[in-house]
Amino acid sequence: MYANLLPVNGKWKQQITDYLTEDVPSFDFGGFVVGQKEETATLLMKQSGLISGIPFASEVFKQCELDVEWHYKEGDFISTEELAKHNGKLLVATVKGPANKILLSERTALNLLARSSGIATQSYTTKKLADEAGYTGLIAGTRKTTPGLRQLEKYSMLVGGVDTHRYDLSSMVMLKDNHITSTGSITKAVKSARSVCGFAIKIEVEVSNEEDAKEAIDAGADVIMLDNFSGKELQETAQRLKKLYDGKKSFLLECSGGLTLQNLSSYLCNDIDIYSTSSIHQGCGIIDFSLKIKA
Amino acid sequence: MYANLLPVNGKWKQQITDYLTEDVPSFDFGGFVVGQKEETATLLMKQSGLISGIPFASEVFKQCELDVEWHYKEGDFISTEELAKHNGKLLVATVKGPANKILLSERTALNLLARSSGIATQSYTTKKLADEAGYTGLIAGTRKTTPGLRQLEKYSMLVGGVDTHRYDLSSMVMLKDNHITSTGSITKAVKSARSVCGFAIKIEVEVSNEEDAKEAIDAGADVIMLDNFSGKELQETAQRLKKLYDGKKSFLLECSGGLTLQNLSSYLCNDIDIYSTSSIHQGCGIIDFSLKIKA
Amino acid sequence: MYANLLPVNGKWKQQITDYLTEDVPSFDFGGFVVGQKEETATLLMKQSGLISGIPFASEVFKQCELDVEWHYKEGDFISTEELAKHNGKLLVATVKGPANKILLSERTALNLLARSSGIATQSYTTKKLADEAGYTGLIAGTRKTTPGLRQLEKYSMLVGGVDTHRYDLSSMVMLKDNHITSTGSITKAVKSARSVCGFAIKIEVEVSNEEDAKEAIDAGADVIMLDNFSGKELQETAQRLKKLYDGKKSFLLECSGGLTLQNLSSYLCNDIDIYSTSSIHQGCGIIDFSLKIKA
Amino acid sequence: MYANLLPVNGKWKQQITDYLTEDVPSFDFGGFVVGQKEETATLLMKQSGLISGIPFASEVFKQCELDVEWHYKEGDFISTEELAKHNGKLLVATVKGPANKILLSERTALNLLARSSGIATQSYTTKKLADEAGYTGLIAGTRKTTPGLRQLEKYSMLVGGVDTHRYDLSSMVMLKDNHITSTGSITKAVKSARSVCGFAIKIEVEVSNEEDAKEAIDAGADVIMLDNFSGKELQETAQRLKKLYDGKKSFLLECSGGLTLQNLSSYLCNDIDIYSTSSIHQGCGIIDFSLKIKA
Amino acid sequence: MYANLLPVNGKWKQQITDYLTEDVPSFDFGGFVVGQKEETATLLMKQSGLISGIPFASEVFKQCELDVEWHYKEGDFISTEELAKHNGKLLVATVKGPANKILLSERTALNLLARSSGIATQSYTTKKLADEAGYTGLIAGTRKTTPGLRQLEKYSMLVGGVDTHRYDLSSMVMLKDNHITSTGSITKAVKSARSVCGFAIKIEVEVSNEEDAKEAIDAGADVIMLDNFSGKELQETAQRLKKLYDGKKSFLLECSGGLTLQNLSSYLCNDIDIYSTSSIHQGCGIIDFSLKIKA
Amino acid sequence: MYANLLPVNGKWKQQITDYLTEDVPSFDFGGFVVGQKEETATLLMKQSGLISGIPFASEVFKQCELDVEWHYKEGDFISTEELAKHNGKLLVATVKGPANKILLSERTALNLLARSSGIATQSYTTKKLADEAGYTGLIAGTRKTTPGLRQLEKYSMLVGGVDTHRYDLSSMVMLKDNHITSTGSITKAVKSARSVCGFAIKIEVEVSNEEDAKEAIDAGADVIMLDNFSGKELQETAQRLKKLYDGKKSFLLECSGGLTLQNLSSYLCNDIDIYSTSSIHQGCGIIDFSLKIKA
Repeated sequence: MYANLLPVNGKWKQQITDYLTEDVPSFDFGGFVVGQKEETATLLMKQSGLISGIPFASEVFKQCELDVEWHYKEGDFISTEELAKHNGKLLVATVKGPANKILLSERTALNLLARSSGIATQSYTTKKLADEAGYTGLIAGTRKTTPGLRQLEKYSMLVGGVDTHRYDLSSMVMLKDNHITSTGSITKAVKSARSVCGFAIKIEVEVSNEEDAKEAIDAGADVIMLDNFSGKELQETAQRLKKLYDGKKSFLLECSGGLTLQNLSSYLCNDIDIYSTSSIHQGCGIIDFSLKIKA
Repeated sequence: MYANLLPVNGKWKQQITDYLTEDVPSFDFGGFVVGQKEETATLLMKQSGLISGIPFASEVFKQCELDVEWHYKEGDFISTEELAKHNGKLLVATVKGPANKILLSERTALNLLARSSGIATQSYTTKKLADEAGYTGLIAGTRKTTPGLRQLEKYSMLVGGVDTHRYDLSSMVMLKDNHITSTGSITKAVKSARSVCGFAIKIEVEVSNEEDAKEAIDAGADVIMLDNFSGKELQETAQRLKKLYDGKKSFLLECSGGLTLQNLSSYLCNDIDIYSTSSIHQGCGIIDFSLKIKA
Repeated sequence: MYANLLPVNGKWKQQITDYLTEDVPSFDFGGFVVGQKEETATLLMKQSGLISGIPFASEVFKQCELDVEWHYKEGDFISTEELAKHNGKLLVATVKGPANKILLSERTALNLLARSSGIATQSYTTKKLADEAGYTGLIAGTRKTTPGLRQLEKYSMLVGGVDTHRYDLSSMVMLKDNHITSTGSITKAVKSARSVCGFAIKIEVEVSNEEDAKEAIDAGADVIMLDNFSGKELQETAQRLKKLYDGKKSFLLECSGGLTLQNLSSYLCNDIDIYSTSSIHQGCGIIDFSLKIKA
Repeated sequence: MYANLLPVNGKWKQQITDYLTEDVPSFDFGGFVVGQKEETATLLMKQSGLISGIPFASEVFKQCELDVEWHYKEGDFISTEELAKHNGKLLVATVKGPANKILLSERTALNLLARSSGIATQSYTTKKLADEAGYTGLIAGTRKTTPGLRQLEKYSMLVGGVDTHRYDLSSMVMLKDNHITSTGSITKAVKSARSVCGFAIKIEVEVSNEEDAKEAIDAGADVIMLDNFSGKELQETAQRLKKLYDGKKSFLLECSGGLTLQNLSSYLCNDIDIYSTSSIHQGCGIIDFSLKIKA
Repeated sequence: MYANLLPVNGKWKQQITDYLTEDVPSFDFGGFVVGQKEETATLLMKQSGLISGIPFASEVFKQCELDVEWHYKEGDFISTEELAKHNGKLLVATVKGPANKILLSERTALNLLARSSGIATQSYTTKKLADEAGYTGLIAGTRKTTPGLRQLEKYSMLVGGVDTHRYDLSSMVMLKDNHITSTGSITKAVKSARSVCGFAIKIEVEVSNEEDAKEAIDAGADVIMLDNFSGKELQETAQRLKKLYDGKKSFLLECSGGLTLQNLSSYLCNDIDIYSTSSIHQGCGIIDFSLKIKA
Repeated sequence: MYANLLPVNGKWKQQITDYLTEDVPSFDFGGFVVGQKEETATLLMKQSGLISGIPFASEVFKQCELDVEWHYKEGDFISTEELAKHNGKLLVATVKGPANKILLSERTALNLLARSSGIATQSYTTKKLADEAGYTGLIAGTRKTTPGLRQLEKYSMLVGGVDTHRYDLSSMVMLKDNHITSTGSITKAVKSARSVCGFAIKIEVEVSNEEDAKEAIDAGADVIMLDNFSGKELQETAQRLKKLYDGKKSFLLECSGGLTLQNLSSYLCNDIDIYSTSSIHQGCGIIDFSLKIKA
C-alpha cells in the first residue's frame, strides 16, 4: 500500500486544496449552470502504462465531497493489449456525487493522475530494461523534480519500482568539487559534513578519478558517485574499488549523468550499485485519463 | 517585457519561497560545508530551444540574496547551430554571491527554467509549423497544466507565441454536454451562464454538430468549439457558419482534441480561429540547463 | 442556487476560518463561562431588504459545529410591511448546538450577513429603479470593493440582480489614458493587450470622445466606456456609434462615473449596454440581523 | 503617531499582500501594456472629512516598490471650505515609480483609504457632537466590524477620536444573560470568568435593572452595561449607582444599543462613562479618493 | 472544562497540523512498514504530577483519525503513591485505530502532554506552597513562554491554578522606565497609553519607589508593579499604599523578579495582590508519558 | 559557522514572523507610548553557559528593523568565573534602533536565546562528562523536542557538541516491535522499509536480545539500538557483536532509554557508538538573558 507513505494529515492535502483553488480563484460559473444533480462519472485510462497517483486523485475527490470507487490498484500495469480490449478506454474508477462537484474535481484529479502515471510508467520501463539486462542493483531518480510537486513525483518513482534517491538537501549530503575546494580536501569535506549531519544521515561524494574515490571511502563516505567515467573505465574502476575494500569498508557506488532509456544498457554492470537518471521523471510524458459524466 | 505580466507582489513569489523550502525542510548540510565564500557561477544552456522562465529564476536568485546578470533575454531562440558554436554550453547568465547560497538556489532555479523553456520551445515549434502552413489564426494551450505551476506554464506559452486559452474555471465559461443536459438546452445553458458571468466574461459552447453550433451562436455564445468533426467536415462546417452569420453575429470557432505537432497540419484552415492542444505544454519535454561555480 | 457559484473547497472557507480567529486570537473566556449546554438560537432580520450571504453564514455555523435551518432563501426580499407583521423581527433561521459555539459564531455570522444583505439590497433597489424607467440593459458594480471581501461583495451584487463587472486585473482588460499614452495609440494599446490576454479575455477601452470610441471599436475592443460625456451627448454618441457599426462590429457601450441612486435616471438610455456604479456596494449601509439564544 | 500602534512585522502587512493578490490572481495584462516607464501620480481627496489609513496605503505602495510622499498627516480634518479651495480635489500625496506598479497599487490603496477615512470621519463627527453637548466621557465603537478588516477599522476609530471598545473575545469579557443563566447568577458568572481571565482582563456585565447592576458591581465587574433603559431611567439609575458606590467600588457604566448620530444627544449624561455605537463604523459611508498619473 | 477556553475553529488546530507536518516533511516510511492494521494503544503517565494538555493531545489523535478515551480528566493530580500502585505506569488513555496512524500521532501527542503537564505541575506546586503559607492572592506566570507555544503554556498555568498574567503586548499595557522617559513622566505615560488602549484594557506601571507608585496610582494605573524592593521594604510599602488609597482609588499591587519555588515564601504578604514568576513555566521540567501499542 | 545550516529563505524565518505576531495580535500600545526615538540597548547574559541561538535572535532583530552587533559568537562558553568578572551581567550584544521596535523584539529574541542556550549548555555539559570518562563515540539527542521548535532545538544540540539523531519520521527509519510484528520478522521489516526508503536513508532496528541484533545486522540494518540491556550485559553484548561482524558487516550500536547526566557514566563503553538521551534538550532549563535600553 504505497498510500501509507503519505501522512494522514500532511502538507500534501493542503497542496491539493491549493490546486483546487488555483483552478477557481473566484466563482465557479459552470458549477452554477450545472447545479447539484447527483451524477455518476467514469474515470477512463486512455493510454497503456502503470496506474499511479490514486491517493492524490482520491484526496481531490474527497475534498470535493465525492465518492470514488477504484477498480484497479496503485501500480497496476495496463498493457496495450489490455487497453485494446476496452477500445482504448479502460474504466479505472467510478465517481459519484453532485454534478458541479464532479466538474470541479475533474481537471485537478486528471492532471495529477496523468503526471504520476507518466513517471511511474517511465520508471517501470527503465527498471524492466535493466532487469532484463541482468542488472541486480538499483535504478534511481534525481532531485530534478517539478517545483512544488516533488512528493508526488518521488512517490511515482516508487510505484514504478525505482529508488527515489535523496529527497532534498536536508537528506543525504552530496559533496561535489565546490565543497571539496572550500574545505581543502575530500577528507576535510567529509569530516565537516559529518560534524553536523551526524550518524543518521549518509554522505555521498562525487569523484572523477580512482584516487579521489579511495580518499572518499577512507574518509567515511557512504556512497561514491563516479562522474565522467567512460563505460569501460567505469566498470573496471568499480570492480577494482569493490575488490580493494572488500571486508574493510562498506560503501555504495553510483553512476549518474546523461543516462537515458536508450543508452542505459551500455553502462550497466553489477559492481555499480545505483544508476540514477532524471529521464524517468523529467519531461518524460504523461498518461492520458479522462472523466465523463454518464449520460 | 513578459515579466511585466507578473505582479510585483504576487503569489508566485511566495510559491518560489515554498519551492526553496521544499528543497531544505530542515538543515542545509552542504551549505555548512561550503560556507559563505564569494563565488561566481555560470548558468549554461545545453539544448537548443527558446529561453523562458527568466523572471522566475531571477526571483529564486533574489530570494537567495544573489546577483544575476542575464546575457540573453526572455524568448530568445537558440538554434542548434548557435549552441554548437559554444560547444553545446551557451553562457546564459552569470550568478554571483556566497557559495552556500548559490548551491541552495541551483536546483530550484534550473528546475523552473527547464520546464518553462521546454513549454516555450514546444509552443514556438508548433506555432511556427502552423504559420508556415499559411494559418493566420491562433494556436492555444489548454487547462491541462501541472497543478500549482499553471502561472509559469501559461506564461511559457505566451513566451512561445501561443494563446493561453482560458486560465481557470473563473475565466471564460465553457459549456459542455453536462451543462446543456442539466439546463435543458444550449439556449438555456448560455442564458444561465450569462446571468452570473455577466458581460465581462466570455462563454464558449462545445458542440458536435452544425445545428447545435447555430443554436449556441444565436444564444449569444462568444466561442464555439467544434468537437469530434472529421478534418473535411470541420473545414466545411466552419466555412458555412462563418458565411451564414457574416455581419450578423460575432463569434469565434475553435477546434480541439488530440491535436499534436504531427497531425496539426491536416486540420488547419483559416475559418477556424483557434486550434488548442495540450501537446505544447503537457509531457512535452524540458530544456537542459546547468549552473557551475567557476574554478 | 447562488451558492453553487462558490467552490466546495475554495479559499472563501479558509477566509471564514481566519475571520473566526480574528475574533478569538487566544482564549474564549465567555465560552468557558457559558459551557457546552445544548441551546437553540433564533437568527432575526431587523430591517427591510434582500436576504443575502446565507452560504457564508452557513459556513460560519458549520465551522463552529452547529446546525442551522434557514426559513428563507438567498435573494428573498422582505418588505417593510412583511417585517412589521413580525414586529420588526423576522425569524430567518434557527441555529442549534452548544452554547459556547453559538456565541462564538454569532458576531462573525452576523457581520457577514449584514454586509452581504446591505449590498444586495442596494443593488436590487438600483436595478428596480432602472427597470421601472424602461431600461433594458445592465446595471453593474465596480472593483471598489472591501479588500479581502471582494468575493462576498461581488456575490451580493449578483443576488441583488446586478452585473459584477470585471472581477480583478486578471479578468477583462481595461485600457485607460495611461495605457494609450504608453503605447502611442488606442490601436497599439489594444493590440498589445490582445497579444497577451488572448481570445478568451475581453478588452475594454475608456474614451472621452467619439473619434477615440471609433478607433477602439475598429481596433477590436469588446467594450467601450464613454467617460465624461454629458447626459445628452452620451445618449446621442451612443446612438450614432450603434448605428454606424450595425452589422459590422460587435461591441458594448458602458457609462460610468459618479452614478448614484439619485442621479441614475437622468443618464439612462437603451443604446448604453451597461451603467456601472460603486454606489451599490461601497459605503452603502448594512441590514441589521441579530442572533438570540432562546430562553 | 498612530502608525506606531501597528507592529513593524505584523499580520496586517501579510493581509495587504493578500489584498494585492486578490486583485491579480494570475496575470497583470494592463501592467504588460503600460510597462515600467517612471511616472508620478497624484493622490487626491475628493470629499470633506478626516484623513485616515495612511500607514495602510503606505504599505501598499511599499509592497509595490513605489515611493510616496504624504502632504497631510493621519487625522487631519479637511473641511468643505478647504476642499473647495482646491476645486474639490485636494492633493494628499505624491506617488512615484514605474507605471505598471502605480496602476497595480491604485485600487487597493484607495479602497483602504476610503474605508478608513469614512470611519474616522463618522467617529470624529459623533465625538464632536457629544463634546459640544458637554459630555465628558467616552464614545466607543463595537465589535460589529468587517470580517478580516477589524484592525483597520478599530484603528480608524482611534484616529477619529473614539474608544475602540473591546477588541475581540479574548479581550475584556462580556457577560450577558446566557452566561448568567448557564452559571446560575451574576455573581457566579463573574467568578467563573475571573477564574480564567485573571486580574489582567476586565469583565463587563450587561444588566437590565438596578438590582442586577448592584449584584454585578458587588461581584467585582469592572464595567456595567445598562441595557434597555429609557433615557430618563438610564440617567437616574446611573446617578444612583455612582452615588451608592462612591469610595467603595470602582466601576464604569456603559450605555449601548441603537445609538446613532441622530439620537445620541437625548441619551447623554456624565454619570455614564461610555456610549458605544456601531453607527460610527458599520455601513457609515466612505471618503472618496483617486490616484491619477500626471500627463 | 478548561477545553472550552479553546475556540472550536482556532489557530491552535492549524498549529497541531503544523506540528504533525514538522515530524513528516515527506514520506512516512515507518507507516508503510506497519500498515493500517487496527490496534489499541495505551497512553501511560510515568511521573507524578498534574495531567494537563488533554485537548491538545485529543486534537492530535483526531487529526490522525484515531479514537481516544481518556480515563482521567484535565487537572487531575497523580501523587507518587497513586503512581506506585500502578508500578509507575498509570493508564491515562486508550487510543484505537490503524497502526500507522497511532505511530504517526505518538511523538507529537506525547511532546505536547509532557510540556503541558510539566507546567501545570510546577504551577500547582508553587500555588500550593503559597496557599499553605496563608497567602490569599494570586500567583501568576509571565510572558517568557516558548515562541509559538504560548497558548498551550498559558493554558497549562490555568490548569495548574495560577493566573496567566497578560497574554501579549495587545493585552494589558505595561509601562516601564523607557515608556516613562519617552513621555516625560509617569502621568504622561499613563495618559498616552489610555488614549489608545481605552477603557477596556488595563494599564500596569512598574515602579522602583513609593513616590512613583503614588504618581502611577493617581494617574489611573490599574496595577502597580513594585520592582527591586527588599522583602521587608516590599511588605511595608504595600501596606502603606493600600492604607493611603483605601476607599479612594482601586488598584492592584504586583511583585515580580527572580521569584522561585525556593525563595517565594520570604516575599509573601497579603497586601501584595499578585506574585508573578516565570519559574512555573520556563525551563521547569516535563512529565513523562508514553504510548504503547498493546501486544 | 552554524548559521550556514539555516537556509537563507527557509521556513524558520516565517516562523519568527509568526512568533512576533503571537506577541502582538492587534495593537502595540506600548510602542505607541514609547515612540520611534533612536535608542541603544544592551543584551546581557545572566547565567553561565554556552551562548546559542544567535541566528534566530538576529533574525528577530532584522525583522524588527534593528541593527545588532554581537560581541560573542555562537558556541562560546561563558564560565561562572567569567560571568562574575562582569558582575553577573555579560554584555553579549548591542542592539540599535527605534525604541518601539526594540521593545517589540525584546521578548521574542530573549525567549529564543534562553531556550537555545539552555539546550546547548546541557548538551555541552553532558558531552564533556562523556569525553572526560574516555568515551570516544557520540552523545545524541532524540525526537522529544518542543512541537514547532524542533529546528532550533536540534540546532542547539549541534552547537552544544552532540549529535541531533534522526530529524523526523522522513529521515532515518526506526523499526520497533510494532513494525516487526506487523511484517512477521525483523528481516521482513527491514526489507519492507528498504523497498521504499531506498539506499539514501538509513534503517535502525530496536532489539532486546542478541539474537535479534544479529538478525537485524544480517538483514542490512545500519544501526542497532540495544534496548533494556543492563549495564554489564549491554557492554558485553556490544563487544561480542562488534567482534563477530568485524570485516563482514558495517553497523552502529546505539544505547538509549532513561539516560541522564547523573547515570550516564555507568553505561559508557566504546563498543557502543551512540548514547542518545532527551535529557539534554527536554525540560532541561534555560539560560537567562535580558535586554535593556541604555539610560
